[in-house]
Amino acid sequence: MRVLGIDPGFALVGFGIVEENNGRLKALDYGVISTPKEESISTRLAMIYKGMCDLIDTYKPDAIAIEELFFFKNQKTVIPVAEARGVIVLAGIQKLGNLYEYTPLQIKQALTGNGRAEKKQIQYMVTNILGLEKVPKPDDAADAVAVALTHLQTNNILSDNRI
Amino acid sequence: MRVLGIDPGFALVGFGIVEENNGRLKALDYGVISTPKEESISTRLAMIYKGMCDLIDTYKPDAIAIEELFFFKNQKTVIPVAEARGVIVLAGIQKLGNLYEYTPLQIKQALTGNGRAEKKQIQYMVTNILGLEKVPKPDDAADAVAVALTHLQTNNILSDNRI
Repeated sequence: MRVLGIDPGFALVGFGIVEENNGRLKALDYGVISTPKEESISTRLAMIYKGMCDLIDTYKPDAIAIEELFFFKNQKTVIPVAEARGVIVLAGIQKLGNLYEYTPLQIKQALTGNGRAEKKQIQYMVTNILGLEKVPKPDDAADAVAVALTHLQTNNILSDNRI
Repeated sequence: MRVLGIDPGFALVGFGIVEENNGRLKALDYGVISTPKEESISTRLAMIYKGMCDLIDTYKPDAIAIEELFFFKNQKTVIPVAEARGVIVLAGIQKLGNLYEYTPLQIKQALTGNGRAEKKQIQYMVTNILGLEKVPKPDDAADAVAVALTHLQTNNILSDNRI
């Protein structure tokens, strides 16, 4: 089972591809799709769409897991980030059709057992569970790996997360 | 010059196609792309994308004009509406590449000369300018026609609106 985790953003979209094989977890790749400030809004959305399509074509995941947005977390950027998330979900449904979303609370709970865990604790768990030598950078990539891991750990429990 | 105006939404996306020919304005079509509540979020986004592509294919507009979103106007729905708007902009850039956005203030100003005009006044002007027998329904369609008219009236003045 291979999962593409996504941390939605407009300037940076975090991604992480995690594979589970007989109970063993492995990070195949992680990083960001980045869009330059100099480009128009519409061009940047098209770049995010293409980046998503390329990731799906390259890694052929079985499922995509995306972090849910909350407007109160970042009121200033919520609109461009949600626009980007729409494009990300569209690429996912068009090319794969197996999409799930998880709240920050669910991600923290799944990885640390504590819904109020700090970012550092999540990053520690991501690094530890996958046996990585260092924390994935930037933070967006670590967050994306965390949502992929959340899907692998809760897949059979939380069917409500399908979108 | 033919403009496709869009009032972004998730359950209802308003659209209006307005043509200017030697100074004469004509509404070629208006209505809504609607997405059923029973469908998944991802399916509804895909329906909006397809609806936009179909409109562009059918009417071959020269430009697309979209209303800008403001999170404080409707905090509860801003995230799904912005996700839909991302998909709308994506369809526009992929199929046409000539996109503009206008704030509610700019639309009110362009159609009535008063940035604080009421919805009824905008609808009256839309109906009057286009010589329609009645106000376009639902409101989303009237709003979409209003943004198309705004583009036709301000096209040469407000180049900053390109997205």
